[in-house]
Amino acid sequence: MHIGILTGGGDCPGLNAVIRAVTLALVHQCGARVTGIRRGFLGLLTNEVLPLDAAAVAGILAQGGTILGTHNRCDPFHYFGAGGADVSDQALANAKVLGLDGLVVIGGDGTMAIAHQLHQKGLPVVGVPKTIDNDLCHTDRSFGFDSAVAVVAEALDRLETTARSHGRVMIAETMGRYAGWIALEGGMAGAADVILLPEVPWSLDAVVARCRTREAREGYSLICIAEGAHAAGAGLSVAQTIADSPDPLRLGGVGALLAHQLQPLLHSEVRATLLGHVQRGGSPTPFDRVLATRFGWHAAEQVRQGCWGGMVVLQGDRLGLVPLADVAGRNRPVPSDSPTLAAARALGVCLGD
Amino acid sequence: MHIGILTGGGDCPGLNAVIRAVTLALVHQCGARVTGIRRGFLGLLTNEVLPLDAAAVAGILAQGGTILGTHNRCDPFHYFGAGGADVSDQALANAKVLGLDGLVVIGGDGTMAIAHQLHQKGLPVVGVPKTIDNDLCHTDRSFGFDSAVAVVAEALDRLETTARSHGRVMIAETMGRYAGWIALEGGMAGAADVILLPEVPWSLDAVVARCRTREAREGYSLICIAEGAHAAGAGLSVAQTIADSPDPLRLGGVGALLAHQLQPLLHSEVRATLLGHVQRGGSPTPFDRVLATRFGWHAAEQVRQGCWGGMVVLQGDRLGLVPLADVAGRNRPVPSDSPTLAAARALGVCLGD
Amino acid sequence: MHIGILTGGGDCPGLNAVIRAVTLALVHQCGARVTGIRRGFLGLLTNEVLPLDAAAVAGILAQGGTILGTHNRCDPFHYFGAGGADVSDQALANAKVLGLDGLVVIGGDGTMAIAHQLHQKGLPVVGVPKTIDNDLCHTDRSFGFDSAVAVVAEALDRLETTARSHGRVMIAETMGRYAGWIALEGGMAGAADVILLPEVPWSLDAVVARCRTREAREGYSLICIAEGAHAAGAGLSVAQTIADSPDPLRLGGVGALLAHQLQPLLHSEVRATLLGHVQRGGSPTPFDRVLATRFGWHAAEQVRQGCWGGMVVLQGDRLGLVPLADVAGRNRPVPSDSPTLAAARALGVCLGD
Amino acid sequence: MHIGILTGGGDCPGLNAVIRAVTLALVHQCGARVTGIRRGFLGLLTNEVLPLDAAAVAGILAQGGTILGTHNRCDPFHYFGAGGADVSDQALANAKVLGLDGLVVIGGDGTMAIAHQLHQKGLPVVGVPKTIDNDLCHTDRSFGFDSAVAVVAEALDRLETTARSHGRVMIAETMGRYAGWIALEGGMAGAADVILLPEVPWSLDAVVARCRTREAREGYSLICIAEGAHAAGAGLSVAQTIADSPDPLRLGGVGALLAHQLQPLLHSEVRATLLGHVQRGGSPTPFDRVLATRFGWHAAEQVRQGCWGGMVVLQGDRLGLVPLADVAGRNRPVPSDSPTLAAARALGVCLGD
Repeated sequence: MHIGILTGGGDCPGLNAVIRAVTLALVHQCGARVTGIRRGFLGLLTNEVLPLDAAAVAGILAQGGTILGTHNRCDPFHYFGAGGADVSDQALANAKVLGLDGLVVIGGDGTMAIAHQLHQKGLPVVGVPKTIDNDLCHTDRSFGFDSAVAVVAEALDRLETTARSHGRVMIAETMGRYAGWIALEGGMAGAADVILLPEVPWSLDAVVARCRTREAREGYSLICIAEGAHAAGAGLSVAQTIADSPDPLRLGGVGALLAHQLQPLLHSEVRATLLGHVQRGGSPTPFDRVLATRFGWHAAEQVRQGCWGGMVVLQGDRLGLVPLADVAGRNRPVPSDSPTLAAARALGVCLGD
Repeated sequence: MHIGILTGGGDCPGLNAVIRAVTLALVHQCGARVTGIRRGFLGLLTNEVLPLDAAAVAGILAQGGTILGTHNRCDPFHYFGAGGADVSDQALANAKVLGLDGLVVIGGDGTMAIAHQLHQKGLPVVGVPKTIDNDLCHTDRSFGFDSAVAVVAEALDRLETTARSHGRVMIAETMGRYAGWIALEGGMAGAADVILLPEVPWSLDAVVARCRTREAREGYSLICIAEGAHAAGAGLSVAQTIADSPDPLRLGGVGALLAHQLQPLLHSEVRATLLGHVQRGGSPTPFDRVLATRFGWHAAEQVRQGCWGGMVVLQGDRLGLVPLADVAGRNRPVPSDSPTLAAARALGVCLGD
Repeated sequence: MHIGILTGGGDCPGLNAVIRAVTLALVHQCGARVTGIRRGFLGLLTNEVLPLDAAAVAGILAQGGTILGTHNRCDPFHYFGAGGADVSDQALANAKVLGLDGLVVIGGDGTMAIAHQLHQKGLPVVGVPKTIDNDLCHTDRSFGFDSAVAVVAEALDRLETTARSHGRVMIAETMGRYAGWIALEGGMAGAADVILLPEVPWSLDAVVARCRTREAREGYSLICIAEGAHAAGAGLSVAQTIADSPDPLRLGGVGALLAHQLQPLLHSEVRATLLGHVQRGGSPTPFDRVLATRFGWHAAEQVRQGCWGGMVVLQGDRLGLVPLADVAGRNRPVPSDSPTLAAARALGVCLGD
Repeated sequence: MHIGILTGGGDCPGLNAVIRAVTLALVHQCGARVTGIRRGFLGLLTNEVLPLDAAAVAGILAQGGTILGTHNRCDPFHYFGAGGADVSDQALANAKVLGLDGLVVIGGDGTMAIAHQLHQKGLPVVGVPKTIDNDLCHTDRSFGFDSAVAVVAEALDRLETTARSHGRVMIAETMGRYAGWIALEGGMAGAADVILLPEVPWSLDAVVARCRTREAREGYSLICIAEGAHAAGAGLSVAQTIADSPDPLRLGGVGALLAHQLQPLLHSEVRATLLGHVQRGGSPTPFDRVLATRFGWHAAEQVRQGCWGGMVVLQGDRLGLVPLADVAGRNRPVPSDSPTLAAARALGVCLGD
């Protein structure tokens, strides 16, 4: 048996743990030959490969990123970009030349959509969900998310000392364009007083009211805002300012704009920090190492059993499989009945609504 | 409404997060009065209390230990020790004098057994599970466990560099007298080559064989052994040595004795480290902060709704409640069909069997 | 003896360690009474104080920020701002009413200038240097700097995994408006390929050349740039862009503008992260805890011996004292003969010149 | 030019940073050929080598251990052991066959003694000091020490939460057989109440007195004891117990024995933790990465300038060189006039005397 592995989309702590687990399980249990495909689907088109065995994956469990490299935008069905040519036949031909009996694809919803199409054209595929944002459908958790939450919580711990010492409002902007999981769990872990998500419409007035109450009593506030929180605002003041700003997200981000709007309405100084790329780099937390290892092992199990066309998922404490078709192109926002959201409200965290 | 909170048994990262969540939720939602009972059930007998409100719990989310203090051995039904007097009436009388409408009890199976008895005698009680070992029945996870796993994984990361540089066998002994969850997940997160648990009977021969194979190929090995692993051995050589040693667990531990036995059978130097108390101290991981906060919130919900006599649990991703009677005095070993155990085997981790 | 302590200027990891050391040393050795002045010099004007003793400083060694609070802009000689009234007599009168025999002032060059003036007007003062940027004159190191360097190094560790996985140029912007110590040591500790400082004039061409070489060979680059690096450019392209931008430092920072300029000149994607306030918050590193404790102890020694009017310094491995007059209003850039700078050059780090 | 590098003695965080710096500086500045010798002096006898260049040292700055491997006991002048044969001619012959123009030797006092002898027999050598214990003569600091102190401080932070929650005396035993630097700085950074060093004769009575005072007031105590602290006791009770115990250091260590002795004299429970090998493994702190890089660069400078026979040192903030002969076989205890020791005393830390 000869199995390929590739990682697609943005990097994420735990990718190497999956690569290691798939490799070790297939080598140890089946004596399989395993080949890494470099730079996502691009390597399948350009024949960039890396042989994988126990020695090749030794020591990578705790390493951030992916030893295979990845590529954000390579889609063999649109090469490159939305109007690009369909070169998927080339990908399939290369897989045949390599002698691959199957392919383990690790990636997000975009990558799964490609994996699904390749599978429909005859390439045996198993998917492993990868999303720093924890917003893939059908899986309760994905690796990398816990690591991102840990970065946010540590940043809030740091910002809190400054907020308290200076009597300031400190804002931390997290990842999460469409789903607010990172801001919600990171904010809860970092004791944020205000948490703003894409899923919960919020008004500047509610945030101001909360900060003023704390100005009078505790003297400072911590705000945790997801980068996509502006899009959902009922009172769209932040979003409007953004719309009028030149390329604002690359510059200061929604947190800086919130600071800009809050400052004239409060006595305290307001400062924003855009956490940015540090949320997705670095060594995975032990939790993510174990979760990614379990995902990798379960993907190898599907390969062993010849179960192709599905994506590994975690439901409760159990691993399962869902059809690739059910995952592609969908995402999973924080539901309105989320128990963590309920806990936040109950503890008096301001959600801006 | 006036609610008491106490923490019993050994300390655990996340206790303060529960105390904070219960307090904030009850104050914020019900305007309740909340009183902390100091030093476990001892404080209920000696009337040592600490008033709790938003100010009192500010800044404790990330603190290790418990601001209420705890006590390992105080049982009002056996004061002190197995043959001690039943002074539970005094505890109930004091609760009445304090004017408590109910008590939130955070603790392990021993503490839950006491809570159950107090509830049967008429004190309204809600339990919150606390076990660093993750071995309480009916709950998939308990707070503190992730923090302990993180300590073990970081220690293995450190020991690995020495093992590799010197070509050694390095042994880390973890907590886990009756259940091997910490050793299993910590060992998986730290890329241990051998993981020895109380639940899996193991032989020295199997460990030697694995270390010899690695001596020849990788040149070094990492072993992660639970403190209770000796008790389950089929070939009881380590356990026998321990039985013949004077008070061995307080001195070197089972890891040191394994090192003692392995050394003559291997070419490499063998070294053991007993991780000890650092596994249960310190700031909780962000994961544990969120989990403990959710537990605390859910306990406050039971109080609000007048649901007494149960213990909060996590099942899958959902919080629930089980009767205290179902928890008391039982524990939850790693099941033989544990998917993490299966993943370990599949990746070639030696479990000694 | 009755001694006051205050912290002025921006917060910095280790402030609490100094407060603790001064308090413990004076209480333990002299039985002195110690009083904390809240919010920098503002508390001296408004009589906001906090009694300090062993119990009050227990547990604060590892806490970030300052339990006394601080204030960035309160100067009793210009209340508030450059043209403000001289209310220093009020400060002196309040110190007399409090019965202070002396004042320990922890702060940067601005704070030391005020301390110097108060000392000249008759208030016995000892200064303790505080600068996250490590740029106070006469002291080789100041506490907080090691903590800031650690934050930068960890961020670069994280960014490196993304840079390598995606084949990107990742830019981290650090603190350091006038002195580049944080960028230099943080960059060295984080294996940056390019380090840009205020002290070393640099050109975009040199940075592009280095990134292109690495594009061809390693495939990715890490750039560490101090926020003040733009001011020193020989080819002022970044600075010029900043000059033309609306309030750019509050938005994206110099790192984002460097990314903007680099992007069209390289094949790789370029991404910038502004590390911001997380560099000055949070628990001090063990190194900073010890250094701050030594500073605090040495300040207490000066108090005991009646040596007023000086600031504690570290020179080599020895603590000393320099007149406040020698410190006020000056700073200490990275010297051109800095051995760390020489090491950077020798290892092939691009400094842009 | 062709230069060899080897690492001898126990591993230490920062070894790879030195290897990287020497390699990059020699390659970048001189176009030198650099060869790593594996497993200390053993590789020089067995011709185990690893070619080093920029690619080979990429990514190792932050890795613990040594990519070259090391060996604790190989001395070409006594092969193996104290009465062993002198095979140093073989080492020199191999160096000639390899074509080495010089050798950079990274190690402790034993390794420097060997390096000195090889240099006297004609092999050009430059030494770089390596000691986790910070006890090499003539250098104020050595890399790895800050990392070890950080491990101790973090462990004390963790133990403190348990000590406080349970009202216990918690003991942490650190490395330091002959010198107490790790216990002193680690203890200061971790707010230990009692610090016991080899250099300061101490009595059990003094420790008991301190713990009793704290039992009455704070309710708990933290003790930090160096493994060699027993050897210096005026009242040798712990040492005597050790002398009577079978192989005690491999088992519980001096901390466990101190616990054994303290327990009957105190009301509180007493618990000991032997920190062990985790103190010398793992990623170096940013401070150590910079220091090790500076050492490596300075060693390369000596090579470039043909300055052989010396060991690089740090004195104050400056790097220098001392003759290998002056270092070999000596160590550097904490001096009685150490300012950190003075600070400890002044703050009321009990040193047991």
